[in-house]
Amino acid sequence: MKGLKQHIRSIPDFPKKGILFYDVTTLLNNKNKFKEVMDVLYERYIEKDIDAIVAIEARGFIFGAALANKLGAAFAPIRKKGKLPYSTSSVTYSLEYGEDTIEIHEDAFKPGAKVLIVDDLLATGGTMAAAVELVKKLKGDIVEVSFVIELSDLKGRDKLKGLPVYSMVKY
Amino acid sequence: MKGLKQHIRSIPDFPKKGILFYDVTTLLNNKNKFKEVMDVLYERYIEKDIDAIVAIEARGFIFGAALANKLGAAFAPIRKKGKLPYSTSSVTYSLEYGEDTIEIHEDAFKPGAKVLIVDDLLATGGTMAAAVELVKKLKGDIVEVSFVIELSDLKGRDKLKGLPVYSMVKY
Repeated sequence: MKGLKQHIRSIPDFPKKGILFYDVTTLLNNKNKFKEVMDVLYERYIEKDIDAIVAIEARGFIFGAALANKLGAAFAPIRKKGKLPYSTSSVTYSLEYGEDTIEIHEDAFKPGAKVLIVDDLLATGGTMAAAVELVKKLKGDIVEVSFVIELSDLKGRDKLKGLPVYSMVKY
Repeated sequence: MKGLKQHIRSIPDFPKKGILFYDVTTLLNNKNKFKEVMDVLYERYIEKDIDAIVAIEARGFIFGAALANKLGAAFAPIRKKGKLPYSTSSVTYSLEYGEDTIEIHEDAFKPGAKVLIVDDLLATGGTMAAAVELVKKLKGDIVEVSFVIELSDLKGRDKLKGLPVYSMVKY
């Protein structure tokens, strides 16, 4: 999307030294730009008959829930372990140091549902690959995996092979 | 809102023994009900010229961001300490055991902006009282504090005195 980069703030050394963090809050606090981004996503997906949008805690909820409501789709959150109160499916995946576990409610959507997975940023792709695994466990039909920002150098797409992947802006 | 309760799942002993947890994911994964809830909020606020919706991590993001987009307003997240990358204002508040700190970006909205604060659930009101303090620090003009669910017995409204408080459903 043209001109989007100037509304995304980059912050050096966050959350730790050597990391350049892309901050979407400057996009969200501009009502016209936030609307424009959501309109682009709406146009991309309105003809796809999406049943449910699945999004990853916490920034993914912002774009995912706004889009779900706009499309008239359902919304299902993926959260860190222990946060969802009902029966869950979980996936544990490796991080640079250690590992992490994410979960989805077992009744998040019906088997065969057309699912769009949304997050704010694609970096190494580890979390999103785990999210894809969760959606597949529940037999969701993944229409696309959608990001606002993609950090191309980190090759996150390699972890999402065989799936359509979309990003609005690439660094 | 009529008939809403039957779409909110109650889960005993979550996150710990003795707590009855109200789970909104069963509302969110019903596309018609999710839309209906957002339509009610839209009707309530569309004439109020809201500049920005401020919402509390993480479930608050779901309702807050969807509503912001629907109203054409900006969105600003309140997060746990250390999660927001830019200069923040912070408030520390007491919990049953210990304390917690929440933050907002200093440029979340302009002084004088008409702000609606959104969260999924009003319990004791401690977190929302801290959120109100954050919005006041940035000189926001609070139009209302809005919840999907209110647990009336816990008297959270007492911590929000002098502010308009709205909830869609009361237990």
